[in-house]
Amino acid sequence: METPFVDWLLERIPADARLEVPPGDDACVLRPPALRRTVVTVDMLTEGVDFILGPDCSSRHVGHKALGVNLSDLAAMGARPEAALVAVCLPRHNGSAIAHGLWEGIETLAAAAGITLAGGDTNAWDGGLVVSITAIGSVPPGKAWRRDGALPGDLLVATGSFGGSLLGRHLAVEPRCRAALQIAERFAVHAAIDISDGLSLDLDRMMRASGACGVVRLERVPIHPDAVRMSRQPGDTRSPLEHALGDGEDFELLLALAPAEALQLVATGEELTGIPLSIIGEVRAGHGLVAEAPDGTQRPLPPQGFLHDFEA
Amino acid sequence: METPFVDWLLERIPADARLEVPPGDDACVLRPPALRRTVVTVDMLTEGVDFILGPDCSSRHVGHKALGVNLSDLAAMGARPEAALVAVCLPRHNGSAIAHGLWEGIETLAAAAGITLAGGDTNAWDGGLVVSITAIGSVPPGKAWRRDGALPGDLLVATGSFGGSLLGRHLAVEPRCRAALQIAERFAVHAAIDISDGLSLDLDRMMRASGACGVVRLERVPIHPDAVRMSRQPGDTRSPLEHALGDGEDFELLLALAPAEALQLVATGEELTGIPLSIIGEVRAGHGLVAEAPDGTQRPLPPQGFLHDFEA
Repeated sequence: METPFVDWLLERIPADARLEVPPGDDACVLRPPALRRTVVTVDMLTEGVDFILGPDCSSRHVGHKALGVNLSDLAAMGARPEAALVAVCLPRHNGSAIAHGLWEGIETLAAAAGITLAGGDTNAWDGGLVVSITAIGSVPPGKAWRRDGALPGDLLVATGSFGGSLLGRHLAVEPRCRAALQIAERFAVHAAIDISDGLSLDLDRMMRASGACGVVRLERVPIHPDAVRMSRQPGDTRSPLEHALGDGEDFELLLALAPAEALQLVATGEELTGIPLSIIGEVRAGHGLVAEAPDGTQRPLPPQGFLHDFEA
Repeated sequence: METPFVDWLLERIPADARLEVPPGDDACVLRPPALRRTVVTVDMLTEGVDFILGPDCSSRHVGHKALGVNLSDLAAMGARPEAALVAVCLPRHNGSAIAHGLWEGIETLAAAAGITLAGGDTNAWDGGLVVSITAIGSVPPGKAWRRDGALPGDLLVATGSFGGSLLGRHLAVEPRCRAALQIAERFAVHAAIDISDGLSLDLDRMMRASGACGVVRLERVPIHPDAVRMSRQPGDTRSPLEHALGDGEDFELLLALAPAEALQLVATGEELTGIPLSIIGEVRAGHGLVAEAPDGTQRPLPPQGFLHDFEA
C-alpha cells in the first residue's frame, strides 16, 4: 500500500547496512550476519485483550509494547536483535493519529534496541486496532537458548521482580536484550524463557519442554512493589506472592544453569547487566511444579497465568 | 500460548533441515542458506476488507489466500520461498473451527511451495478474523528483483491475464513462485512487481520507483474471462479492459526487461513456466502512465486500483 502515511514512514527509516533492499519494495532484503543463525518470532497485540486505548494507554504505548514483547522473545533465545517488520490494522476512525502514535512508540524502541525497521503492511477496517510485529535476530550456530535444555540439579535464575504489571509495567515493557547478550557471552545457560503469561505458567512450560520438575522457593521469589500495591486494592483477594507467580507480562528472563554457573551469575550479574538477579528455585527429576515454603514443606504448585481462550 | 490447538499444530509441522530450533520455543531458529540474502515480507488480511467469511469463502480459503499473497511478494522479488510465520486473531465465536480451516489452507499451500512453517502466534478476541503472515525467502546477493530498476527502452512483460478476480481468483491465489525462479535463472530482469492492487496502479508504482514512464498497449493487455463476465453483470459499467487494468488481486507478475531479453522470454517462457507471458507495453523516459490505442493514439492513463484508506 502507498499512502501519504506510508510515504512519510519510508522517509523516516534510517539507512542501515543490514538492508540490501530497504522497505518500500514487495519485500525487504536483509544481509544475514555471516556464520550466525536467524532467529524469528511474531507476536500480535489486539485492542481489548492486550491493551485498551484510553487516557492511560495511547497508541504510542501500544507501539512500544508491540515491539517490546517481540524483543523480549529474542532476549529469551539469547539472540541479538537485528530487524523488525510491522503489520497493523487501523480503525478507520482516528486511524491517522493512531498510526502516528504507534510509529513513535515503535521507532523509539527500535532505535534504542539497535534494530532496523525492514518492512510492514498498513491496513484499515471498521474493527479494533491490531498490531503484529515480526522480530528477527541472530545467534551463533547451536547457541540459541531453548526451553527444553533444563537439567535436574540446575538452579533457576530470574532477572528483576514479578507481579502487578497491570499497574503500568505491562505497557512499558523493558525487554532484557542487552542483559541476555551479556549473560550469553559469559555463562552456559541450559534453558531460558521470558515471563509473558505468568512466572509459574512460563516455568511450567520450561519444565514440560525439558521433561523435569521445577521447585520454586517461595520466599526467594522477587516481588515487585506493584504486586504489593495490587494486593492492597479494594476487592483484591490475592497475596503479593500470588500476584508475582501468576500475573504475567513482567517480561523478565527465567534461566536454568548448572549450580556453579548460577551462583557466579547471581554474584556478578547485577554489576554486569544493571538488573538484579535471583535464584528462585531449582530443577529436579520428575514433572510439574513444586512450591517449597521457608520451613521446607512442599506442595504442588498449580501453574497460574494468562491463556488466550478461543476453544469452545 | 499453549492450548490444545497449538499443541495439535506443533505436532503436525514436519521436521525440516532449515530449522535449528523448531516452532514451540520463544522464537524459531533458521539456518540461513549459505551465500544468500534473506528476503522478508509481511501481509495482513482482515475480515470484511480482504475476505467475507460465508458460503463462498471458508477459513480454509482465507488461510490459502493469506499465505498466497505473501508468496506472491517473494515471487515478485525473484526469491526462493523458505519459511513462514503465522499470527492470527480468532473470533471467540466458532474460533476452533475457523482455526482448523485456516490451518488446512495454510498447510496445503506451504507443502506445495516447499516452505517450512516456522512459528506463529494465536490470539482470540471479540472482533473479526485477522491473519498476518510473514514469509521468508532467499536470493543470491544483488539478485533480488526490485521495483526501481526499469530502464527507458525496456519492454513490460506480464504473466497470465487480468481482471475480474473478485469472481473467485482473489481467494484461489496462485503465487508465481516457480515461474519467478525459472525466469530469474535464465533472464536479466530489470524490475518486477506483483499485481495485487491493480495492473495500472502497480505499474504506476514500478514507474514511480524507477523514475520512468510506462506505456501500456491497450490491445495487448491479456484480459481474463472473469473480466468479461464481470463487465456483463447487471449494473457493471466498466469494460473488460477497465476491469483488467484496475481490479487487482490477480497476483500475476509484471517484469521489465531489455527488448531482446523480453522477446526471448515471451517466445520461450510459456514452455518454461507453464504460464502464458505477454508483452503489454514499454518503458520510456518521463513519468506517469500512457495508454496507447491500436491506432497509435496516446492518452494519459490514470492508475486505478485498490487503496486502503484510513487517513481522514
